[in-house]
Amino acid sequence: MRLPKGFLASGVRAGIRKKRPDLALLVAEKGANAAALFTKNRFQAAPVVLGKRDLARSRGRVRAVVVNAGCANAVTGKPGLDAARRVRDGAAALLGVPKEEVIVSSTGVIGVVLPDAKIRAALPDAKYRLSASGLEAASHAILTTDVGPKIAHAAFTWMGRRGRVVGFAKGAGMIHPNMATMLAFVMTDAEATPAFLKSALREAADASFHAISVDGDTSTNDTVLLMASGALGGPAMSAPDDAPDFRRALTEVCRQLAWLMVRDGEGATRVLDVTVTGARSRADAERAAHAVATSPLVKTALHGGDPNWGRILAAVGRSGARFSEKRVSLRLGPLTLVKNGIPAPYREKDAVRIFRKERVPVVVDLGAGVATASKLSSDLGHDYVSLNADYRS
Amino acid sequence: MRLPKGFLASGVRAGIRKKRPDLALLVAEKGANAAALFTKNRFQAAPVVLGKRDLARSRGRVRAVVVNAGCANAVTGKPGLDAARRVRDGAAALLGVPKEEVIVSSTGVIGVVLPDAKIRAALPDAKYRLSASGLEAASHAILTTDVGPKIAHAAFTWMGRRGRVVGFAKGAGMIHPNMATMLAFVMTDAEATPAFLKSALREAADASFHAISVDGDTSTNDTVLLMASGALGGPAMSAPDDAPDFRRALTEVCRQLAWLMVRDGEGATRVLDVTVTGARSRADAERAAHAVATSPLVKTALHGGDPNWGRILAAVGRSGARFSEKRVSLRLGPLTLVKNGIPAPYREKDAVRIFRKERVPVVVDLGAGVATASKLSSDLGHDYVSLNADYRS
Repeated sequence: MRLPKGFLASGVRAGIRKKRPDLALLVAEKGANAAALFTKNRFQAAPVVLGKRDLARSRGRVRAVVVNAGCANAVTGKPGLDAARRVRDGAAALLGVPKEEVIVSSTGVIGVVLPDAKIRAALPDAKYRLSASGLEAASHAILTTDVGPKIAHAAFTWMGRRGRVVGFAKGAGMIHPNMATMLAFVMTDAEATPAFLKSALREAADASFHAISVDGDTSTNDTVLLMASGALGGPAMSAPDDAPDFRRALTEVCRQLAWLMVRDGEGATRVLDVTVTGARSRADAERAAHAVATSPLVKTALHGGDPNWGRILAAVGRSGARFSEKRVSLRLGPLTLVKNGIPAPYREKDAVRIFRKERVPVVVDLGAGVATASKLSSDLGHDYVSLNADYRS
Repeated sequence: MRLPKGFLASGVRAGIRKKRPDLALLVAEKGANAAALFTKNRFQAAPVVLGKRDLARSRGRVRAVVVNAGCANAVTGKPGLDAARRVRDGAAALLGVPKEEVIVSSTGVIGVVLPDAKIRAALPDAKYRLSASGLEAASHAILTTDVGPKIAHAAFTWMGRRGRVVGFAKGAGMIHPNMATMLAFVMTDAEATPAFLKSALREAADASFHAISVDGDTSTNDTVLLMASGALGGPAMSAPDDAPDFRRALTEVCRQLAWLMVRDGEGATRVLDVTVTGARSRADAERAAHAVATSPLVKTALHGGDPNWGRILAAVGRSGARFSEKRVSLRLGPLTLVKNGIPAPYREKDAVRIFRKERVPVVVDLGAGVATASKLSSDLGHDYVSLNADYRS
């Protein structure tokens, strides 16, 4: 897939990981306006610390992004920050752009200082390979335990011009409620101010990445970066409610990436799509959905294809959400399993059939208000244990 | 092991579970003063609703306890409550004691009404088998997926008299942060008021059951019941700070039972004993310890015997506890792995050796204050997945 106009990308091997491409380079030929969301974890990896600072300094201008897999450069103190800085400065010199317009992003092992010499040595090759069709190579180079690359795209119309949004990402272990780093890079040819991009990105993330990785449940390195080259021309999108069709396209791309992260989560075989309705407040709905989506007992039942609604309700019951158990109902797809707090008549084989699909839709109605929230959650099976009992992340 | 004076117990088969004893009966021959802690889950099983009500009505007097495995009688509405009542009334009539002095307790599948006829039919046999040495039979009859029975005891001295505390329990799946029901019954020959028992039980539970199953993280049926027969004689323990040696013994029994629950948790092979020190507040310490103890990535690393401290710090970092990452240290037994936010020099093989013990002691110092908290957490391995992907709880 071609990148939006104004962007080039490449993916190469820097030798941080064994036998796998591990270095991606993105370049905005004439620069891009940008906005980013970074992890809220108290432990912020060196590249996150640096990226936040530089993005503020450049007032949201980005010329290049250097992403490596194999080393998160997190919990590495000043040596880690210096190493990240050397990568940034090396790339800036190589490309002839201001330092503060180069973003460095890392994923991989925690507690090891970035081997920046390896990355700097590989940068000329990465520059040489830059192309408008380099998305696939770049998307491969940022993966860790992911099953495969994650790419999504959508089109939009703004003032009669047809633009594009293209994103790629690496997923996070089980993601929810955990830790393996999530990185996503989204590019568009739209002309937009950094402030507009920030607002649009927040909106899109709330409906996508935050629905799989709740605020605060973030790794040391989590980063979502949105860049707009402006190659499309036309007036700049600037007011928060400008360009609804662009915002729809951006949300769609983020949702596709989020879905791919959960679907290809470590060892995942199916995904629970849980929606809580009828909550007294948005916070209550979030709490209840979060409790279900993160429950190991629900996740193992999902893995076993066992429509065990008792575990779902037990998770809702301990979530802190306020409701009366006598008004709670639970639906599995079109089937009502629990109505007003007591089991409804249904055929077990119908429930099993739905619970064994790739995507299992569950709706819990608390009967206490009108607020809602949704979460996606992967199952918890043997492959997850195998991957994580050994992988040093 | 003999029960404390004044108590009899038995365990029989009522046919709720296939081929396993599933009904325990406890009798306080002359009655007992009692205190209980019940689940805080919004979904409270019928026996919990009934038990709370009756304990208030009898002002903390208990004559008998009927416990069944195989059916939790939770999320069963009025039919469930009626069934629990029929068991209570049947036992009261059989034993010739007031209804409100009979406590019913259940564990097992959620959403199925208690087959009370089976239990009532088995009660005469349970009564016939009552004995002062019936503890073992009773402790077997309340198990579900537990590896084995959980019994603990301790002695105490009060006003020159030597008394005993004996408890038994059934464990909860992975317990933390979940759902499979925890039941514990603790008996003593002490003479004590219900108010004193309540205070002593709260104190003991905070240092034991609550350290593995945090407030709110409770199942539909969780119950801890403490009964004191008074057979020891002497003045009654009544003021909250009375009888420190009794309170020590009670805490010891509760801690032993809590340890057994985690150690014999579903598929558990080792236990993480995580202590957070240097927190700004008790709540911060609890949050941080809870995040570590419930992290699937930490639990799988524990299973793999991999001293992956990056996952532990990442969990602390997202917990919401306030601290500066530059002041955080992490110890594994006597080894310092992280000092003031950066990795310390240590030999990997020393860390691995400690991480492969049955009990893995980890201390995270936040360097932000003086508050502390501890949690026990079992590992997450293949056996856990196998047990929970199929078991309908």
